Amino acid sequence: MHRRKFLALSTGGTAATALAAPAIAQTMPTIRWRMTSSFTKSLDITYAAGETFGKYVSDLTDGKFVIQQFAAGEIVPGLQALDAVQNGSVDGAYTGLLFYVGKDPTFALGAAVPFMMNPRAQHGWYYYGGGLDLMNEFMARYNVIGFPCGNTGMQWGGWFRKEIKSADDLKGLKMRIAGLAGSVAAKAGIVTQQIAPGDIYPALERGVIDAVEYIGPYDDEKLGLNRVASYYYTPGWQEGGTVFHGIFNIEKFNALPPLYKKAIEIAAQATTTSMLAHYDTKNPEALARLVASGVKVSVFPRDVIDTMYKASEELYASIIASNPAFAKIYASQKDFRDKNYSYHQAADFQYDLMMLQLKRSVASR
Amino acid sequence: MHRRKFLALSTGGTAATALAAPAIAQTMPTIRWRMTSSFTKSLDITYAAGETFGKYVSDLTDGKFVIQQFAAGEIVPGLQALDAVQNGSVDGAYTGLLFYVGKDPTFALGAAVPFMMNPRAQHGWYYYGGGLDLMNEFMARYNVIGFPCGNTGMQWGGWFRKEIKSADDLKGLKMRIAGLAGSVAAKAGIVTQQIAPGDIYPALERGVIDAVEYIGPYDDEKLGLNRVASYYYTPGWQEGGTVFHGIFNIEKFNALPPLYKKAIEIAAQATTTSMLAHYDTKNPEALARLVASGVKVSVFPRDVIDTMYKASEELYASIIASNPAFAKIYASQKDFRDKNYSYHQAADFQYDLMMLQLKRSVASR
Repeated sequence: MHRRKFLALSTGGTAATALAAPAIAQTMPTIRWRMTSSFTKSLDITYAAGETFGKYVSDLTDGKFVIQQFAAGEIVPGLQALDAVQNGSVDGAYTGLLFYVGKDPTFALGAAVPFMMNPRAQHGWYYYGGGLDLMNEFMARYNVIGFPCGNTGMQWGGWFRKEIKSADDLKGLKMRIAGLAGSVAAKAGIVTQQIAPGDIYPALERGVIDAVEYIGPYDDEKLGLNRVASYYYTPGWQEGGTVFHGIFNIEKFNALPPLYKKAIEIAAQATTTSMLAHYDTKNPEALARLVASGVKVSVFPRDVIDTMYKASEELYASIIASNPAFAKIYASQKDFRDKNYSYHQAADFQYDLMMLQLKRSVASR
Repeated sequence: MHRRKFLALSTGGTAATALAAPAIAQTMPTIRWRMTSSFTKSLDITYAAGETFGKYVSDLTDGKFVIQQFAAGEIVPGLQALDAVQNGSVDGAYTGLLFYVGKDPTFALGAAVPFMMNPRAQHGWYYYGGGLDLMNEFMARYNVIGFPCGNTGMQWGGWFRKEIKSADDLKGLKMRIAGLAGSVAAKAGIVTQQIAPGDIYPALERGVIDAVEYIGPYDDEKLGLNRVASYYYTPGWQEGGTVFHGIFNIEKFNALPPLYKKAIEIAAQATTTSMLAHYDTKNPEALARLVASGVKVSVFPRDVIDTMYKASEELYASIIASNPAFAKIYASQKDFRDKNYSYHQAADFQYDLMMLQLKRSVASR
């Protein structure tokens, strides 16, 4: 829909629900919401998850409740999505909470922080470990309520122009790496840079930076990073799984009919399954193409991991000392993570290990 | 609700939607469906997923579309759920497709088969790898349409009264293990037994059987299996993740208003996230209690895995030779699994490995 036309047609949720109407009509009033996205359409799987969420809500309300996503920059810049929802200039946003670490590092816990949970543990924590309430208790300070609405899976450790043989090779390295992971990397001696996605390729090509952490094979391939860097490092110690959110202005959300609130919650939960499934289908194909193009998939040396882990622990300790909300949510996640990995190492991890060992032994026959 | 009373009130979906009514009311007619469960209430996480699904559908329709779950045996026995949906004596069922391998082994592919996908790959295959259409194309023969509606995660390899030191120890072992896994186990020399859940404990206690494969720590603990067997084996080569389904009589489903069809689909997808999150929260706590009670968590010797893998390959080859539906779906899953594990070994598996190594090195300091 053309934006100007849409704006003209738009009615606020609160206004619509306040209209006197017969009982059935009140259950499903016509409401149009604007959801600003932190993502551009070029991030097609992620952007598609915002579209899927909107479509689910529409399907669940016979088209009466329309939540239209606007790409980053169409209404406000991608990283100002939270502000726009907070002040009510848009109804909601499709975003990653880690983009708001500058306001409060607690936001990052809602999406991904270094050396924390994998996607299954994240979902366990959110839905059965108290995570949803903890994050919304915190986000109420910003006048928003949010629901997990997608997961990328592990994000990769980054593209490097030169091989990393030890932690010493990180010293003075110029790398595009953002958020809490950027603070960790800086402690390890990396010179961190903030570079918008559209500028990453030329910066890496011209040697303005030596390395970049972006997302994963499917998205990274589209930036063409394999043409300007050969070493693709794993694991992504900085993001074991990244949760994206639908966030909504809390007064507007509270004014919705109960059915529409439930449509948002359940559509978001279904999108969480669907976006991860989408990445888990497309990333394998993309990595195969990258490897065929000559990319060297490399595992970080152990001392790089140890260095980053130590730096992360120091960073966490310093934030915890001065930020009670972070301290509370971090403690909850760490406890969940530790219990989950204690189980996982004996359970599903063993299944995966068995499958990988069988694959190798079959391949070597 | 009391069953007799419910039956008196029940209106068939088709009859209700055929009533003349104003436009808005037709969108959301009052419909009550009976969903027979293959599970008893004692399997509380699994049974709860059926309840969650029904609650989501009700919440999404302002209570107009009620899908009430009836525990196994209340209307029909748990393993006759498919028959009851097929002949229309109930509207739907909450069930595991692997229960119907006796009708056609193709059903098992919809839930879990030996040495196949883990839960994330299963969801990728269902939602983006063509799985949903493939399974429903097959299930149309039985007059049903189905949607994944939960996942248990990896099921465990089983409880054994004696330590298994090599594949030779399996010969003549009396074990409760069902479905395709039972056929595989039989090829490996195990004497397989069919025993209902309520009879497992006494059978193991009295030595009628030497071993049992059931579910995972949370459910197994409730049967008290740790009091009559000490060795708990991993990985569960037979079920890397088990998908449960909501299945519905296809004529009744097709007669639903579009909104109600979408409510079923999206509620089921959201339940898939939620049930796995539930097990991923409760299984770690249960395993910790089992270990504290003296259970020895043991990894199957490599030759046991190799024996089972070889037997599985033989079984698949023989089924494929005579069953085109199985052959088609198996080929699709195998391709998805192989691509997924090729990726996973470099990606999320590396993250988990890193976290487990860090945990060990922290623990040993």
